[in-house]
Amino acid sequence: MPDTMDQKHADFLNDCVKVLGASHVMLGDDELAAPYRQDWTGYHSGTPLAIVRPKSTDEVAQIVALCHAFGVSIVPSSGRTGLCGGGVSLPDDKSLILSLERMNTIRNLDLDGRSMTLEAGVILQNAQECAAENDLVFPLTFGAQGSAMIGGALSTNAGGSNVVKYGTTRESCIGIEAVLPDGSIINALTGLRKDNTGYDLKNLLIGAEGTLGIITAAVFKLAAMPQARTTGFLSLAALADAPRVLNALQDRTGGAVEAFEYMPDVAIDVICHAFPNTKRPLEAPAKTGIFFEVGSNRKDDAQPGEEGETRLQDLVFATLAELMEDEVVVDAMIAQSEQQRIDLWTMRESILESITENGPAYFLDISLPLAVIHDFVAEMDVKMAELGFQPITVGHLGDGNLHYTLSAAKGKNWDELPLEAAKDYAFEVLSRLNGSFSAEHGIGQSKLDVMLKLKEPSQLDAMRLIKQALDPQNLMNPGKFIPV
Amino acid sequence: MPDTMDQKHADFLNDCVKVLGASHVMLGDDELAAPYRQDWTGYHSGTPLAIVRPKSTDEVAQIVALCHAFGVSIVPSSGRTGLCGGGVSLPDDKSLILSLERMNTIRNLDLDGRSMTLEAGVILQNAQECAAENDLVFPLTFGAQGSAMIGGALSTNAGGSNVVKYGTTRESCIGIEAVLPDGSIINALTGLRKDNTGYDLKNLLIGAEGTLGIITAAVFKLAAMPQARTTGFLSLAALADAPRVLNALQDRTGGAVEAFEYMPDVAIDVICHAFPNTKRPLEAPAKTGIFFEVGSNRKDDAQPGEEGETRLQDLVFATLAELMEDEVVVDAMIAQSEQQRIDLWTMRESILESITENGPAYFLDISLPLAVIHDFVAEMDVKMAELGFQPITVGHLGDGNLHYTLSAAKGKNWDELPLEAAKDYAFEVLSRLNGSFSAEHGIGQSKLDVMLKLKEPSQLDAMRLIKQALDPQNLMNPGKFIPV
Repeated sequence: MPDTMDQKHADFLNDCVKVLGASHVMLGDDELAAPYRQDWTGYHSGTPLAIVRPKSTDEVAQIVALCHAFGVSIVPSSGRTGLCGGGVSLPDDKSLILSLERMNTIRNLDLDGRSMTLEAGVILQNAQECAAENDLVFPLTFGAQGSAMIGGALSTNAGGSNVVKYGTTRESCIGIEAVLPDGSIINALTGLRKDNTGYDLKNLLIGAEGTLGIITAAVFKLAAMPQARTTGFLSLAALADAPRVLNALQDRTGGAVEAFEYMPDVAIDVICHAFPNTKRPLEAPAKTGIFFEVGSNRKDDAQPGEEGETRLQDLVFATLAELMEDEVVVDAMIAQSEQQRIDLWTMRESILESITENGPAYFLDISLPLAVIHDFVAEMDVKMAELGFQPITVGHLGDGNLHYTLSAAKGKNWDELPLEAAKDYAFEVLSRLNGSFSAEHGIGQSKLDVMLKLKEPSQLDAMRLIKQALDPQNLMNPGKFIPV
Repeated sequence: MPDTMDQKHADFLNDCVKVLGASHVMLGDDELAAPYRQDWTGYHSGTPLAIVRPKSTDEVAQIVALCHAFGVSIVPSSGRTGLCGGGVSLPDDKSLILSLERMNTIRNLDLDGRSMTLEAGVILQNAQECAAENDLVFPLTFGAQGSAMIGGALSTNAGGSNVVKYGTTRESCIGIEAVLPDGSIINALTGLRKDNTGYDLKNLLIGAEGTLGIITAAVFKLAAMPQARTTGFLSLAALADAPRVLNALQDRTGGAVEAFEYMPDVAIDVICHAFPNTKRPLEAPAKTGIFFEVGSNRKDDAQPGEEGETRLQDLVFATLAELMEDEVVVDAMIAQSEQQRIDLWTMRESILESITENGPAYFLDISLPLAVIHDFVAEMDVKMAELGFQPITVGHLGDGNLHYTLSAAKGKNWDELPLEAAKDYAFEVLSRLNGSFSAEHGIGQSKLDVMLKLKEPSQLDAMRLIKQALDPQNLMNPGKFIPV
């Protein structure tokens, strides 16, 4: 240990080495520790005491017990793809980074019960592939799935494009194993669909961003693999019509909508600018553009009808024909090949990078009741233009989740724009319309101020009481999630 | 106030009268209070101090604040149809019964977002009817729905026959309003599908049986109304084949299974004995009988095919034909009319009454992973017969939820049978197979001993810490749910 380290920390790390071996305990300022000191955003970085990489739940429990005994704080870390700084240590806090990357075993695949038990360090894409090999769908999908891990997805209750079909992470997870702040283990990896034996500790730990304990493994529901898909792009007469279009597609297909994404022309423009090879889905700009995908598990929906289209396509065509007759849908394109489908998805997935390349921007991750989304967008668009911003909005409209994004309007200098006033205005409208200021990314460090301002005081008080009860030393991911 | 009452309680009740008016505060030994002193089972009864009937969330909050100030314990009460004694006061505990029956307003119906906001005193059937008038389905259904109320359903995370399609109460509820033990109100009636702003207080309060606060209102998801239904009864070659049959029906119909209920011949015999007009669904006794219903939201599934059957029926027929060819399904009947469907449902719903009429019995409300249910039943049936019992088992097999029921075997005297040994054996097998000792009824008073014995100590400790943090005076439904 370096000479500059105090005796307590040196003793603590020696004990960690006894548990894990020297090769899985790394000092925080080690060159190899660089990736652990920051997350994907690059905005957040810290100065951790050390990084440990346990391989088993028992090792996690032993390390947490040591932290409890020595009073060392812990930042659980997995894929570090979070967007709010929840997975990195704070400057000067001398936390231990506990990386779950070596707990990457798929422990069980239950084909009868259609569930899968995964350790916290399993990469989402690996879980997806394992399920797909068995003709099943692992329910979580989002952009970072190639490096995001189960632990982080659970800790942030991560969302994504197909929550509209498979539900949130909380809804997909049917059991957890976790280490509590005192080092005790809870084993609730039941995978049961019904279980009324006590408080819902599973959902309390999911979305808690590591502040109440460390989830080490979880059971997820698996869904049947779609046998037929129909993917397309719509131009609606008005955003207020979106719920009607969504519900019509759901009803005709028996709830098979897998993605229902808001992509107005301004977003398409930004993508086409960043990726000039992008093919615009419709010739005329669609002020209210919707990218959608429907996936049916039914074999009969994959069978060709009279015109050679699949039954699912016929259902979608019939739905759209009615909506076009009523002038709700103005224009539509349906992917006629797997390549066209991939092109549409590529376009959707490139929006974040396109906006980033476009210049400085501020992202809101909000949700609203479907019925008032058009009110929010209408009011915001006017006010933001007045303030000198160009809004670029996309989002998982089927869940009421918008990524309303502010960029500088043409000719405006970002640094001179009143960003704080814009945010205040946005949050005021959001609160008035009963929306949420964090839909799927979490709180971490970056939304603590908004949390303090907008979360109901009685709920904040209840959260603080729970946190104090389970983690009285405030060792679990301190300085995140709960505003002081 | 009666002379015998101590001054503290007299002062407390005077303050309650100031909040609610004299007509909504009733002494516990009042003749009119009789229904509030016990629940549907008749097993559990108490001697409450008084019964109060607030009309609004604000009134609930004021009463709870008074209880907090005076140190008076509270038993929240709604339809009193619970099966574990959670909704009645304990003997001699002088609790206040807080009945939510007057909070019976349907506050909002959101047709765009397909959700409904209900107060805790709304009777389930009223919610169902309101949804049905709008061609939507309220997701909770169970035997007691004509008197059970939203508050009790939420507090017990009540199950039922169609959890297999619509999910548990926790999964169907997307927002709550509640009064915490200190009288503060939390308003989380968002109805949002995605919301990552803090600990999951909603799911913590759901299923907490009133021990952490009183849920006063909730938002529920609504589902599309089925356009076609197919209902029937199957005889399987073996219980081990049930997951295959369930998954085949789900896959062919796109996840439309609404009920998948275990009804072996011994259960049918008991029903036919209690209700001699019952028509047996199949001629030959079915050792592994399954009552099922499939409901599709798709209009095209209601259209008649070439043979005059609906498309949904054709799908079910095709599925069963394959399963019969593989000798997994031995025999099948499909309801050919709405009357036949009602007859099947009536048979299913009369099982509890039939078993009760049959003689003394002990009900287990358990759940297991689907893949091991046949192991549990096989092992239990042998052992229970040895001990002199006749098991009569039914249950929501699609969720892995069994109501394994013990009655006296022919010629045996119930009072002489080793019930405690039988329960111990059952819980040992259940634990070994990772089952739950309470699937859908809750804990209340009657399962406290099992809770203490079987619940993992680390989870019990965490529960106690949370309870102590939020309700330090232990005023909320004391003596229930959490074993001391």
